[in-house]
Amino acid sequence: MKTIVSTFEMQKFSEQARLREKTVGLVPTMGYLHKGHLSLIGKAKRSCDVVITSIFVNPAQFAPDEDFARYPRDIERDTQLCKSAGSTVLFVPHENEMYPEGYSTYIAVERLSSILEGKFRPTHFRGVATVVAKLFSLTKPHKAFFGQKDAQQCVVVRKMVKDLNLGVEVVTAPIVREKDGLAMSSRNVYLSAEERSEALILHASLRRAQEMADHGERNAAVIAGEVRHMIDTKPSAKIDYVALVDAESLADIDSLERGIPVLVALAVRFGSTRLIDNTVIKIR
Amino acid sequence: MKTIVSTFEMQKFSEQARLREKTVGLVPTMGYLHKGHLSLIGKAKRSCDVVITSIFVNPAQFAPDEDFARYPRDIERDTQLCKSAGSTVLFVPHENEMYPEGYSTYIAVERLSSILEGKFRPTHFRGVATVVAKLFSLTKPHKAFFGQKDAQQCVVVRKMVKDLNLGVEVVTAPIVREKDGLAMSSRNVYLSAEERSEALILHASLRRAQEMADHGERNAAVIAGEVRHMIDTKPSAKIDYVALVDAESLADIDSLERGIPVLVALAVRFGSTRLIDNTVIKIR
Repeated sequence: MKTIVSTFEMQKFSEQARLREKTVGLVPTMGYLHKGHLSLIGKAKRSCDVVITSIFVNPAQFAPDEDFARYPRDIERDTQLCKSAGSTVLFVPHENEMYPEGYSTYIAVERLSSILEGKFRPTHFRGVATVVAKLFSLTKPHKAFFGQKDAQQCVVVRKMVKDLNLGVEVVTAPIVREKDGLAMSSRNVYLSAEERSEALILHASLRRAQEMADHGERNAAVIAGEVRHMIDTKPSAKIDYVALVDAESLADIDSLERGIPVLVALAVRFGSTRLIDNTVIKIR
Repeated sequence: MKTIVSTFEMQKFSEQARLREKTVGLVPTMGYLHKGHLSLIGKAKRSCDVVITSIFVNPAQFAPDEDFARYPRDIERDTQLCKSAGSTVLFVPHENEMYPEGYSTYIAVERLSSILEGKFRPTHFRGVATVVAKLFSLTKPHKAFFGQKDAQQCVVVRKMVKDLNLGVEVVTAPIVREKDGLAMSSRNVYLSAEERSEALILHASLRRAQEMADHGERNAAVIAGEVRHMIDTKPSAKIDYVALVDAESLADIDSLERGIPVLVALAVRFGSTRLIDNTVIKIR
């Protein structure tokens, strides 16, 4: 595995790979890799000749009061993990090359960026869209791999790719969970033992949502109410949102209908740690 | 010359050209071609194997009260001109393929987009940046050619290319003028005979600015004042702005200094026609 730091080198490498008619896959990450990331690298490896994993903690997607500074980092461990997972290139650009002084260009995917997560993190998806577009320009991928845990991010990136004609295939992979059901996240290290134990309610409540649908419940508000109720039983939990939306358009829905996948998305704070999780429910 | 309408075809064509290691040049236009455009195609031809001229009257860069609907169009004549100028491909995408229903992704180059032209046309450069990025994705150029008449557009596009790592070389070509000095513009056809005659003051006033600098004037406000004064002598002229700014950063300047090119930019309405013009003055 080759590690590239310079944006110029990265662009040159990818241009050459394309000229040699190699299929290029990109797995963009913020590092502190877990099994979710590794599943994306594995998926990329199965369909691409060249797999580029990028690690960049993107300041543009954090608000000033968020956890940019304390976001966990461990580049040595990440390098080993990337290598064993089969990545061809590890791309680790410097912040001052990605956002040099006077940087001022931002991409906005309107509407999709201001709902759900966007209501609580108004500049988040602008930062995500911008850095993803930059990483696409630098790595010139045919395919890019994103984890379904950030469900709204997947929808926003897909929309940007379509609108700006970026010509990249956006591939998503399922959420990877710990044995006890907690969705893998680099932020899980922030949790105290008690918070971690209470956070298991997220997966439990999402499973309950699917169960309710299986038992005939069609009212979205009733299902959301039950999910909220379950989470509220945990003393350290504070709900930002629980929402049932159309899984493709993220439009609000009132009732579940056969054939239309529904995303149950939630964000909940346990102490000072904010977790997101989701599931897509289908009427079986 | 090949005419391409479909965005899918265009992207495929350019991908193939790149695989065959051809240098691709793009000349993005809104059509109704004049000698300014043709000089860009000529310039592109001299340094690129493949020259793509795009014609697309971009609704996103017009405000609702502007001249989108009446903007002059003549695709038959444009096709002939493109061909004789040596363009390899004429790309004429449809509006509903460029901005399908639900389109919602926009690129903002902050600060540079809100000054000068941007004060009078607040959404203009957002539309320009967005369509140029889309055209870059569709035509994958190594070089793109822009006319210096839209001086601020050149600066905005250059900044976007740098910030988003687009890897396209932005080449600008000098303003082409009619024999009497009027800068070539597709909008000149809007002018009545009298307005057209009065509009000659624009070039005269810009030449006067250079003369003043040649005679030792270093005060930017004094030069701007003289330019305004000359234009104000014409009954049909209404000035939107006359500004002296750093030609690269578009930052305001107080005084002219040796070695720092200064852009004298202006926008003036003659009747219902809004013209822009500019010159770069240097202390000789």
